Amino acid sequence: MEKIGFIGLGIMGRPMALHLLKAGYTISVLEKNKASQELVAAGAQSFATPAAIAQNSDVVITMLPDSPEVVTIVSGQDGLLEGIRQGALFIDMSTIAPATSKNIYEWMQQKGAEALDAPVSGGQSGAEAATLSIMAGGTEQAFQRALPLFQAMGKNIVHIGEPGAGQMTKACNQMIVGMTIQAVAEAFTLAQKAGVDLAKMREVLLGGFAQSKILDLHGKRIIERNFSPGFKIKLHRKDMNIALQAGREFSVPLYGTAQVAAHMDALLAQGKGELDHSAIALLIEQLSNQQ
Amino acid sequence: MEKIGFIGLGIMGRPMALHLLKAGYTISVLEKNKASQELVAAGAQSFATPAAIAQNSDVVITMLPDSPEVVTIVSGQDGLLEGIRQGALFIDMSTIAPATSKNIYEWMQQKGAEALDAPVSGGQSGAEAATLSIMAGGTEQAFQRALPLFQAMGKNIVHIGEPGAGQMTKACNQMIVGMTIQAVAEAFTLAQKAGVDLAKMREVLLGGFAQSKILDLHGKRIIERNFSPGFKIKLHRKDMNIALQAGREFSVPLYGTAQVAAHMDALLAQGKGELDHSAIALLIEQLSNQQ
Repeated sequence: MEKIGFIGLGIMGRPMALHLLKAGYTISVLEKNKASQELVAAGAQSFATPAAIAQNSDVVITMLPDSPEVVTIVSGQDGLLEGIRQGALFIDMSTIAPATSKNIYEWMQQKGAEALDAPVSGGQSGAEAATLSIMAGGTEQAFQRALPLFQAMGKNIVHIGEPGAGQMTKACNQMIVGMTIQAVAEAFTLAQKAGVDLAKMREVLLGGFAQSKILDLHGKRIIERNFSPGFKIKLHRKDMNIALQAGREFSVPLYGTAQVAAHMDALLAQGKGELDHSAIALLIEQLSNQQ
Repeated sequence: MEKIGFIGLGIMGRPMALHLLKAGYTISVLEKNKASQELVAAGAQSFATPAAIAQNSDVVITMLPDSPEVVTIVSGQDGLLEGIRQGALFIDMSTIAPATSKNIYEWMQQKGAEALDAPVSGGQSGAEAATLSIMAGGTEQAFQRALPLFQAMGKNIVHIGEPGAGQMTKACNQMIVGMTIQAVAEAFTLAQKAGVDLAKMREVLLGGFAQSKILDLHGKRIIERNFSPGFKIKLHRKDMNIALQAGREFSVPLYGTAQVAAHMDALLAQGKGELDHSAIALLIEQLSNQQ
């Protein structure tokens, strides 16, 4: 069995690493943080630097907040590139810019290592239940090598295409999720002010063309006024920026994406970036009421 | 069993009326058009005017394209109001402005008749399979009286609330459907230009938070470049206008709805109003390519 290094033990990474441990893999983590102590108690080894983890791993997985964090862990001082073995496999499961993923793929190639971009969808609950959707970009050989690991963490696992294709697909996922939340938020705010029972409306709309996982889950959140995350607006805004950058790079005018990003900017300006992204409904409500 | 008058035998109304006939109801239709000859051949009676239909019916159902057509049939010369019986029930299953539905309810009340607004979702296939979602506004008594008729035509049947609440819910349905189509269209256009395999992307996104009936059905249409209706852009644009009017009436700024309506306006300007609403993808594609 391949020896795994795992960096990024947050809300998502922690349960993902635990699933790999449970599947029988040897895991190495960074020494410094609290979550690693839990992993070490559960049988993981720990090392002081990413470089040291890379020296002691066949496969290194990262699950970090954004492109700069991934670039630092990969190419910073004592970073993965300083220790990565010839023939090793690097898998970045963070959500970052597709262009950055392509750069990382090139850097790893220069060290004789393979790289996959393999972002996920399904959130904390998907990570905990090992039911994540995983969308991978990279060579077929690298994908097949990673597949047993993915199967320990996820359910709907698709090799999308070449390096960067996983991240591009994730950016598209985040665009659709953001716009669908706004669609539900506009409809629910209008219906509420018009005196329509939102629970009944959600029930009947779930039976027709308006059906979506967002109408189901985020619609319920809006009705219950439950805006604790979930997925934070500030993180979703970061992902919308990745999509808008890609839109500029490939000359696709993203009217809807840009507009939802502006609503998210308004929520960030108001200090509401820590709320769940369903709080777009709060903004529309606020815009609809006398101050 | 109540005697039914049915006016509006188009793509939707024809199969709906046939389901009522099959369920054993006596149906009256207008003499003038081709579809009524088919209904008459199947056992329906025919009359020269809406007033005559109303005189000979316990329940009158309309299924028409837009508010003006419904208002003409109801309150025009030889219209339903001239013949409607005391104690009769009028059910409008068209998609029209909620404010118009409320007016019609008042007019019917003045004649001693009940009225329901009961628009549907599910399209031609739903009408043919008798699996329509039906969202009804009006009194509980009127809803209970209509329920056996609804059950002959639909599946997911919900009494939403007071007169107009059915139409308001339908407007919200159309907003969500329109915005979700645009979300999928933006994502697919970007992914296509970035070289991502759309079929694989659709497959993995259907397993996560981006899942929707639109991603499933309209996503498939976009991949197959099948823009024959389905649901025509010009009809969806009409429904978006109902939503935008309601937004103004209830002071809710509908940024997303307005933006999608503008994309539909561009398609109408280009003479593409007869295409399926998934053709929003065609517009985004066109905006993304050199002319």
